[in-house]
Amino acid sequence: MGARQREIASRIKIWARRPEIRRELAQKQWCDEASDELQDACAGSELIVLCAPVEKIIAYAKELSTLSLEGHPIVTDVGSVKSLISRDCTRHLSGHARFVGSHPMAGSEKTGMDNAQATLFENRTCFVTPYSETDQSATESTIAFWEMLGSTARIESPENHDAIVAKTSHLPHIVASALAVNIGKAGDDAIRTCGNGLKDTTRIASGDPQMWREIIAQNRDEILRSLSSFDDEMQRFRSAIENENYFEVAQKLADGKSFRDKL
Amino acid sequence: MGARQREIASRIKIWARRPEIRRELAQKQWCDEASDELQDACAGSELIVLCAPVEKIIAYAKELSTLSLEGHPIVTDVGSVKSLISRDCTRHLSGHARFVGSHPMAGSEKTGMDNAQATLFENRTCFVTPYSETDQSATESTIAFWEMLGSTARIESPENHDAIVAKTSHLPHIVASALAVNIGKAGDDAIRTCGNGLKDTTRIASGDPQMWREIIAQNRDEILRSLSSFDDEMQRFRSAIENENYFEVAQKLADGKSFRDKL
Repeated sequence: MGARQREIASRIKIWARRPEIRRELAQKQWCDEASDELQDACAGSELIVLCAPVEKIIAYAKELSTLSLEGHPIVTDVGSVKSLISRDCTRHLSGHARFVGSHPMAGSEKTGMDNAQATLFENRTCFVTPYSETDQSATESTIAFWEMLGSTARIESPENHDAIVAKTSHLPHIVASALAVNIGKAGDDAIRTCGNGLKDTTRIASGDPQMWREIIAQNRDEILRSLSSFDDEMQRFRSAIENENYFEVAQKLADGKSFRDKL
Repeated sequence: MGARQREIASRIKIWARRPEIRRELAQKQWCDEASDELQDACAGSELIVLCAPVEKIIAYAKELSTLSLEGHPIVTDVGSVKSLISRDCTRHLSGHARFVGSHPMAGSEKTGMDNAQATLFENRTCFVTPYSETDQSATESTIAFWEMLGSTARIESPENHDAIVAKTSHLPHIVASALAVNIGKAGDDAIRTCGNGLKDTTRIASGDPQMWREIIAQNRDEILRSLSSFDDEMQRFRSAIENENYFEVAQKLADGKSFRDKL
């Protein structure tokens, strides 16, 4: 939708796993063709964007390598985790296509075509995660694609990307979820007295559990590191409260405010 | 503002600690009188509402007991913690006035008169926390006051109140703060890649540190209990990830979603 609206692509071909979705897509004004065969969708494409749950992206890259792809196209993806995907997709597509990983920091807890928005990528950060060996023109075209959609590209290695999002995205998700589980145990009674603070703090816990299970599985090591570091911070908070060291408690609250006010 | 707009009070008198605030209040259309002396503000009042940081509320109740109060007025407050306040205010005011604790679950991280809203209490829960010995007509009038402002009153003992808000409000505040402190350590670099998820999860960390220090100090025991229970939940999450038990991870995410979707 965004690519058509901003006139980035001369021809937009879509393939989707479910036939009923392909039929629905074929009716969309922004879609030139919704092929029944992945081969037909990919033939002649300069840029192929894999949009699938993180565990499926690698399987699709493997499938692409069995097709006849013309002119060494660029293949990118939108997965929230990059190390495993970049390694395996690069390996599978070697000699067939040029893989450059992407992770647009856009979207919400709402999924599915009904929530699609042409403006989704505007004013968002999009990670582009090439290796030093990645074809440079493929990287530049991938960056240009996201920037033409309105995003600001940020170039990081796949490994750095995963360490950053473990801290800024995956850890907050687990924390929001644990908070929701913990309060949920207090019963429906607790729900009636929840204020806006709790609603905001736990909003992302409404995300799709299967999608997040896959993200956690793919970024396990960095997430465990983030969990340890968060746990240390919680223990320091707890000790300060236990020891009635309220000067330190206030200092921590001020540090948290200082970071949050910058966002 | 709300009391005038909804015509709940025939006469609204205000006292504030700082003279410049009293002068500013005296100009407000909804304020009948902004006295320089606490005695003048209280004289003849049927209902006195103490709006101050939690540590100051008890001091003001003590000061009220030294004034000449007519007709055994009702005194309530808006503090976020109730056990200590209810016990000490009831004790200080005994023989002078009838104390009934209140805690309207309204407000935001924005404080000060510039953020005042006449509609603040509409469609919110307001805890009213009498003891079994509290004068019943005072309790009923306090409930009526909040309900006329548009809130739904919820009656709990001061102790139950503190256990509930430790879970639903104080714990989320500490968690949001610890999350902000933890990510803040990653440096300003992390800020550039923060998505909306993190913004929501940490929003309440922008609250006033001194106000929250006082709340934490007054509800220390219940907060420590909530921290333990949250910590147990986080450790279970972490073990499931460490053991690559992704079935359990998905189950926890689904439990969190199920609670959050009810809010």
